[in-house]
Amino acid sequence: MNASSSEIVAVVGDGQMGLVLADLLVARGAAVRLWGNFPDEIETLRATRRSPRLADFVLPAAVEVTADAAEALGGATLAVNAVPTQYVRRVWTAIGAHLAAAAPVVSVSKGIEIDTLDFPCDVLRQVLPATHGGCCVLSGPTIAAELARHLPATVVAASSDEGVARRVQDLCNGQWLRVYRLDDVMGVEIAGATKNVIALAAGMVDGMEAGLNAKSALLARGLAEIARLGVALGARLDTFFGVAGVGDLATTCFSPHSRNRTCGERLGRGQRLDEVLESSSSVVEGVPTTRALHALARRRGVEMPITEAVFRILFEGLRPRDAIVGLMARETKAERVG
Amino acid sequence: MNASSSEIVAVVGDGQMGLVLADLLVARGAAVRLWGNFPDEIETLRATRRSPRLADFVLPAAVEVTADAAEALGGATLAVNAVPTQYVRRVWTAIGAHLAAAAPVVSVSKGIEIDTLDFPCDVLRQVLPATHGGCCVLSGPTIAAELARHLPATVVAASSDEGVARRVQDLCNGQWLRVYRLDDVMGVEIAGATKNVIALAAGMVDGMEAGLNAKSALLARGLAEIARLGVALGARLDTFFGVAGVGDLATTCFSPHSRNRTCGERLGRGQRLDEVLESSSSVVEGVPTTRALHALARRRGVEMPITEAVFRILFEGLRPRDAIVGLMARETKAERVG
Repeated sequence: MNASSSEIVAVVGDGQMGLVLADLLVARGAAVRLWGNFPDEIETLRATRRSPRLADFVLPAAVEVTADAAEALGGATLAVNAVPTQYVRRVWTAIGAHLAAAAPVVSVSKGIEIDTLDFPCDVLRQVLPATHGGCCVLSGPTIAAELARHLPATVVAASSDEGVARRVQDLCNGQWLRVYRLDDVMGVEIAGATKNVIALAAGMVDGMEAGLNAKSALLARGLAEIARLGVALGARLDTFFGVAGVGDLATTCFSPHSRNRTCGERLGRGQRLDEVLESSSSVVEGVPTTRALHALARRRGVEMPITEAVFRILFEGLRPRDAIVGLMARETKAERVG
Repeated sequence: MNASSSEIVAVVGDGQMGLVLADLLVARGAAVRLWGNFPDEIETLRATRRSPRLADFVLPAAVEVTADAAEALGGATLAVNAVPTQYVRRVWTAIGAHLAAAAPVVSVSKGIEIDTLDFPCDVLRQVLPATHGGCCVLSGPTIAAELARHLPATVVAASSDEGVARRVQDLCNGQWLRVYRLDDVMGVEIAGATKNVIALAAGMVDGMEAGLNAKSALLARGLAEIARLGVALGARLDTFFGVAGVGDLATTCFSPHSRNRTCGERLGRGQRLDEVLESSSSVVEGVPTTRALHALARRRGVEMPITEAVFRILFEGLRPRDAIVGLMARETKAERVG
């Protein structure tokens, strides 16, 4: 609980997570600058302290709001990457030069860059100036609307540099947010990206009204296949069974408001993917992530039957009901986790 | 898929799980006798094929229904233990002598015997004739009302005797039930018993309207402390992250119908335990299990902060809201799973 932090933090990205982190950090005593890419939107946010992206949220007056990257990043002791995954490379290539030497970057982006199959921290390491102070992933079950109301939540701060992880933990830990340290950046990023694929499948189970037994089995077996891929990519098995693994997955599979779960639910009711996506107001991250995850699994030779089924439903016209029959009829075996 | 099994199965216990297993096994081609302790209830079930314990369920005509243990167990090649945990010792002490030599017992009871802190298979091993054919635990996310409708589900068949596990897998696996083998009987029984304690806590989070982030964190950290106890008792860590671990836990924490979750919800809204229990029509297993689990954790010196909090709320008058504040304010640390 550090309510008088001396950190100067640049929050890059004015989406839901950028907003709630700016709110959190200013309450911890940090000086906070919030940067967004679109001057018009940023001017409205600056003036009204409200965003169409997060209903009922009021940005504290102490948060400086700017569309000028030099102003946001200049002299910041720490930066937050809260940009959607597919834009991380473009944004930080454009503004990264303003990052002060030795400033660590805390990333809350979840996903896989489609063209490269890289995770957000991979991308940051590629495009940030060599003088940056290391990367840290902040991840866990964090529905932004709940964080905005200061409801209790937990996250992990994962970094290969324990000093950075401790610094982020000290900065963010407090009354309503409990922060655990971890050193497995790769595992946390894999868990954060892939949960949306399982959430699509969980939504399909909801849409077919196949029941809670089936949905929980899917959660458990989905987690097991993600952990298996994670271990093949060098992550630690444990990570998938922590708050950023099973915790975040449970939230995404059970939240009535999860976009990915809702998309899956409509598919489970028999709608076509193009119909569902046409009528969605925002990006359904799980759809491109399914393609990326499917490619990663193939490349590494990891068996991922649920991901395979979701891929075939989304892109090859398999019916969700037939997918369940297929999953249930697989050769009987011993249970293997990870 | 074995629809012409030559097994003769005695299902001991006419509660929800006994009923749905009798239905399942007869569909697999086994000869099935269902035994219950109360002649009047058994006579009604035999005549009407319906039970007040499971709405909309009709017991197939092929299932023999009897209150005569010799008739049920005599010549059976396999028996199912579907008796509430606190009655396992008494029932099998009374009827176990009728169990045919070499017949394995498949247990679906979940809980801890309060007086001894023994799990159901421990009790069975103590009271069954030495000639019995081994124990197997069948466990997973299995809401009986869903099984009764033949909705898809998964379980593990866990036995230290791989031959027994395979036999149970062959017998039970089929179109709507997928059975995995496992050898960790202890781990499966610990997971099955302790999930109700976490479900009480999850219900409290619901009752306080503390949000899904908090509930999922509780699920993850609850699972971690259960796994930690399990490993201390000789179970395998992996088991807790399979369908009988996290799968069953997710179902119990998220089902609107879970008795334990509902009890926790009312406590979270400020009702007193005695009020809640007085108005509950059935046993809330998690309440005695919390006492047993708390004692087990002390005996083994395992740190279980969530179990400790539930214990203090149930038996020492701690307010759920203060318990959350206490959990959030614990010393910050690295995340440890198991």
